[in-house]
Amino acid sequence: MQTYPDCIPCLLQQALKATRLCGINECRVFPVMKRILRCMANFDPDLSPPEMAMYIHRIIRGECGNPDPYSGMKHQAIAAALGHESRIRQMIMASETPFRAAVRFALVGNVLDFAIFDWNPQRLEEQLELALHQPLDETALTRLEKEVESATKIMVLGDNAGESVFDKLLIEQLGRKQVTYAVRGNPTINDVTMADAVASGLNNTAKLLGNGSDAPGTLLERVSGEFRREFDSADLVIAKGQGNYESLSNSGRRIFFLTQVKCPVIARDLQKRIGDWVIAESKATVNSQCGA
Amino acid sequence: MQTYPDCIPCLLQQALKATRLCGINECRVFPVMKRILRCMANFDPDLSPPEMAMYIHRIIRGECGNPDPYSGMKHQAIAAALGHESRIRQMIMASETPFRAAVRFALVGNVLDFAIFDWNPQRLEEQLELALHQPLDETALTRLEKEVESATKIMVLGDNAGESVFDKLLIEQLGRKQVTYAVRGNPTINDVTMADAVASGLNNTAKLLGNGSDAPGTLLERVSGEFRREFDSADLVIAKGQGNYESLSNSGRRIFFLTQVKCPVIARDLQKRIGDWVIAESKATVNSQCGA
Repeated sequence: MQTYPDCIPCLLQQALKATRLCGINECRVFPVMKRILRCMANFDPDLSPPEMAMYIHRIIRGECGNPDPYSGMKHQAIAAALGHESRIRQMIMASETPFRAAVRFALVGNVLDFAIFDWNPQRLEEQLELALHQPLDETALTRLEKEVESATKIMVLGDNAGESVFDKLLIEQLGRKQVTYAVRGNPTINDVTMADAVASGLNNTAKLLGNGSDAPGTLLERVSGEFRREFDSADLVIAKGQGNYESLSNSGRRIFFLTQVKCPVIARDLQKRIGDWVIAESKATVNSQCGA
Repeated sequence: MQTYPDCIPCLLQQALKATRLCGINECRVFPVMKRILRCMANFDPDLSPPEMAMYIHRIIRGECGNPDPYSGMKHQAIAAALGHESRIRQMIMASETPFRAAVRFALVGNVLDFAIFDWNPQRLEEQLELALHQPLDETALTRLEKEVESATKIMVLGDNAGESVFDKLLIEQLGRKQVTYAVRGNPTINDVTMADAVASGLNNTAKLLGNGSDAPGTLLERVSGEFRREFDSADLVIAKGQGNYESLSNSGRRIFFLTQVKCPVIARDLQKRIGDWVIAESKATVNSQCGA
């Protein structure tokens, strides 16, 4: 997906929030925002929003001198999710359709997005209550279920730390497949990294693979060769979250995206509403409406 | 008031809205936003937000090739306000405290701000219903009333077109004083200009004076000499709206500001909440907390 004009104020609002979450001295916030403005002024809108976000968070990490400033929040989110794990696994196992229930809980996990939301354990609990009742495209869910059945090699692209615990419960329902769980190559916002995936217990459930990049999405021009080979050779790719959708929706390969809709641009792109839960299959590549 | 980091995404959101209100082709919106980003990246935060907004709207007017792109909306707002004029004047005259009632209606008029709100006749009517009941600092209102009584020369700084009709009703209650109504020197957003003031019927009520600038506020470094002399020699200055507050709150002279609170930065500065109606007296000059 291209970056839309509407992404500009939104990314800057997220950046501003991040400067404060990362503890940047208030007197440094304006100068940091100016660096971000300059960077954004030179950005090619044919690139996707996670590429812009990558640059923004490089600037913020550089300024606060901390390579992983969301580490504390990620630990909190993982701990909270692990606290729910056993109960949710029981609910999935008790369901008549465990795979479908697991997809729903994987969608709950996508609320743990600290670029957009604040860390709020109550919001997570509210979403867990909703999990089995939230409207969802059941036909798309059936198509995904069939794809899983026929696949041998499955790649799951993680999104946020904490959400990763819910992804583990989904992977447990994929059956006896070769599953690779891909994480960000380096920390960015609260996105799941190798260390976060291990802390989420995923190392016993899937092959873990860093994607070689610090973008809060999956930028195929920036991932490692190993990631790219696994991505290209997987029978099925399941991508979690908006960042992966934004960066891969026009990748040319078939992907199942599982995400909550969190912004009006994505809502328009998917013809959904903010707050909706979505199972979307990637469309054929489309060009920017305004040309290069 | 300085420009805060929080003003950056907000001004960009307003700019984006303006590109569309002004009919800029959607394919040109991203390039225009880039020009604005570049301009903002070079902005001195010790200057006030209306100075930044001035540059933004110069870019937008230049792009759409229309020196007054809000003209149609301004005419609509003036016509709507004129439609209420006679009824409101009767309500003011019927009040036990006509001056105080007129101040309240002048505050209603401040909702006609198309940088922030959309044109919505219903919102205006809702606010008119509220006018005589909305909480207001009655002590400040009494101080303003006393200042009016003792003043000979009064300057009223207008804000938006349409609001100007309500300002006229206030000026009618100032008694037999020399009143100058100052307007923007050139069109910017839907701010009141000389032509708008005349269309609002103000030419029969006050001396009209353009301030010589196209900022959506009053930048004392950019106003005409004539404006500055009137401003300095007035016994009392009443300034309408957030833009005038942002640009004059630290001017060093005593000013009564009448505004609705429309953003969290102003709310924090005035220790009020968004939506509050405010009568504020200018404070002594304060320096930026972060130095130059």
